[in-house]
Amino acid sequence: MSTLPFTANSKTYIPEAKPIVVICMDGSADEYLDAAMARNRMPNLKKMIVQGYKGMVRGALPSFTNVNNASIVTGLSPAGHGICGNYFFDAALQQEVMMNAASYLKAETILAAAAVAGRKVAVVTAKEKLRDILSHQLKGIAFSAEKAAEARLKTHGIEQVEQLVGEPSPPIYSAKASLFVLRAGVALLARGMADFLYLSLTDYMQHTYAPDTEESLAFYEAQDIELGKMLDLGAIVAATADHGMNAKVKADGSPNILFIETLLNERFGAGFRVICPITDPYVKHHGALGSYAVVYVNDGTQINEVKNWLSLQDGITEVYDKATGCRLLEQPTDRSGDLFILSARDVVLGKTAADHDLSALDGTLRSHGGRYEEMVPMLISHPLNAAYKMKVQGDPRNFDIFDFAINGTIKD
Amino acid sequence: MSTLPFTANSKTYIPEAKPIVVICMDGSADEYLDAAMARNRMPNLKKMIVQGYKGMVRGALPSFTNVNNASIVTGLSPAGHGICGNYFFDAALQQEVMMNAASYLKAETILAAAAVAGRKVAVVTAKEKLRDILSHQLKGIAFSAEKAAEARLKTHGIEQVEQLVGEPSPPIYSAKASLFVLRAGVALLARGMADFLYLSLTDYMQHTYAPDTEESLAFYEAQDIELGKMLDLGAIVAATADHGMNAKVKADGSPNILFIETLLNERFGAGFRVICPITDPYVKHHGALGSYAVVYVNDGTQINEVKNWLSLQDGITEVYDKATGCRLLEQPTDRSGDLFILSARDVVLGKTAADHDLSALDGTLRSHGGRYEEMVPMLISHPLNAAYKMKVQGDPRNFDIFDFAINGTIKD
Repeated sequence: MSTLPFTANSKTYIPEAKPIVVICMDGSADEYLDAAMARNRMPNLKKMIVQGYKGMVRGALPSFTNVNNASIVTGLSPAGHGICGNYFFDAALQQEVMMNAASYLKAETILAAAAVAGRKVAVVTAKEKLRDILSHQLKGIAFSAEKAAEARLKTHGIEQVEQLVGEPSPPIYSAKASLFVLRAGVALLARGMADFLYLSLTDYMQHTYAPDTEESLAFYEAQDIELGKMLDLGAIVAATADHGMNAKVKADGSPNILFIETLLNERFGAGFRVICPITDPYVKHHGALGSYAVVYVNDGTQINEVKNWLSLQDGITEVYDKATGCRLLEQPTDRSGDLFILSARDVVLGKTAADHDLSALDGTLRSHGGRYEEMVPMLISHPLNAAYKMKVQGDPRNFDIFDFAINGTIKD
Repeated sequence: MSTLPFTANSKTYIPEAKPIVVICMDGSADEYLDAAMARNRMPNLKKMIVQGYKGMVRGALPSFTNVNNASIVTGLSPAGHGICGNYFFDAALQQEVMMNAASYLKAETILAAAAVAGRKVAVVTAKEKLRDILSHQLKGIAFSAEKAAEARLKTHGIEQVEQLVGEPSPPIYSAKASLFVLRAGVALLARGMADFLYLSLTDYMQHTYAPDTEESLAFYEAQDIELGKMLDLGAIVAATADHGMNAKVKADGSPNILFIETLLNERFGAGFRVICPITDPYVKHHGALGSYAVVYVNDGTQINEVKNWLSLQDGITEVYDKATGCRLLEQPTDRSGDLFILSARDVVLGKTAADHDLSALDGTLRSHGGRYEEMVPMLISHPLNAAYKMKVQGDPRNFDIFDFAINGTIKD
């Protein structure tokens, strides 16, 4: 197993001769781990906490999947890597597009750098939408659970994935979509096909079920079994989340939505483009409703007035102009709108009612994107060394997780 | 045991014939419970979670002790009860004073109302500073651990407290300062001297020790023993925190402080009054440094310029003018300054270096007051009824805890 040091985005990583597994438990607000642990459903997680480290870390904003996955694999904030949503307005194309392509990524990845240094790298993601970004310039294995059957040696570095894992490619709207990723990781580790893994799950379950439901508990229990196998295989296992998750409902349980484009049109007339960067192809998760939106204002002289008016609306907790938003929210200036909006713990932001199909949801509206889904757990299976015990104080980030897993643990 | 309904601040409480114990676990960021639970040090807490409910709730801002204790006992935000810090600038007196007196409280308390309805109410607080506010118009028992020996029947509704608890009044800078409060609660319950209790702990330990230190684990284990006794005595036990806790340090572990008055004087000259509302008589906790400050600007025409300049300083995450701050932070307008400042997870705000004595600290600087100490755990020992299972979604508050404990549990 290669122990060659390597550098990515000016940070040097010095691995020891152990497999490294970093897991992004999509949508894992700490409440999920907590609820399962209190019910003795995660014995291996518990072992990790006692032997290693668990604490809360600050994710990247907006608290969305693509943003934070890109941060984790680069070690950078969105200002550094350029991925500022699942979906954005491409000013060059003058089009709203998915932000799934590696061509949008402005930075190298830790994964590609590790492969160059001789590590056998594998990326497994639940959602196909993430594969292109995560496998950017990677010499290694990269496939999604969603399209596992389509993996080919030439394009994915692997084939016959279903046989490897021992089960068929799962439906994306299922617990299995994530469990398949973890099981694939275990199989790759066990067969010596990879010794440096990034496993990225999906949050269909968290969007659909609260932490203390049997569905969630069983899901985390099943994840825990795979964590145990990875530990038994001698891996340093590190896990974090891309974002938390909160119910976004009124007192009667109905969705609590501010339709920003409608509100602006009613107040100021036409001339606004509202982007919901949570938008992705997976409609059952959230109906493209999250606690963060970006507004483009046609008439530049109106920006300040619109900002002040938005700030006064109930349910809106933060509104920033471009300069302030890019600085405080660590956003790439070339891909930002004129105004950034964040909403309350229980409120999501939409464009107009017609733009969001809530009939597709499988449960209560639960979502993320804002300040109240920013803090997420970080777990490291092995004890931290003195320098990183110091570093974990203050303001550690979820995208420091490769640094913690590789440089932060006590070497044998 | 009285089951008479009673009303406080327009909310009606309908108790059943069980003792009610609400605990404010001062400074209990969820990480403390989590770390202790993962190490099997809190079996009774675990039982509460499985039988009842645990989730995260939003506290009142600023995330300080007096503010949140006043919120919990009134069921109101600071805008409603008027207590906006431990310390403030009294415009009528033109003086900076401690905000410890019940005369500052603008609302009635749930405790006083319960007593009128026939409940045997007892308030036990670790710090004497809280006793006056918490016992406002209360016909019942109220004493502090700090001054337990001074309790007299006429003034405190009780005497010989040390004999009742079976130990001497503890030093305030100790784990025992909080444990004494819980043990007093158990003794009052066991002897039938109270059936409606509010127990407010102190956060010296959390200011001094991180969650996974043996000091913290032993402290929470000792708390858990008392929780178990209360459950055995048939009480509905509900616990929350007034605020979380974070290390406020630079990479080298030294305190990470912005001295706001110094910065403003350097930039704009004299003419500013900076209030650190965390200030209290207990200097070993935090050196009067928290992640929230209030600024009075002598020259009103400067406010906007000062606001914009402060917004640009590294480590400052939110700055509001009076109107916006009062609305978003739920502050009483008659007791607010011209600007409100909140700082980052790892940053505290001070006046000038000369105003803060860091030599008194017993450990690393750990503190609170801002956005990153806003979310706290809420525990209810008994199962929630259908209406409150709904209510716990969305945006429940820590100051709804009496409502949850009394109205939210399934009646026998």
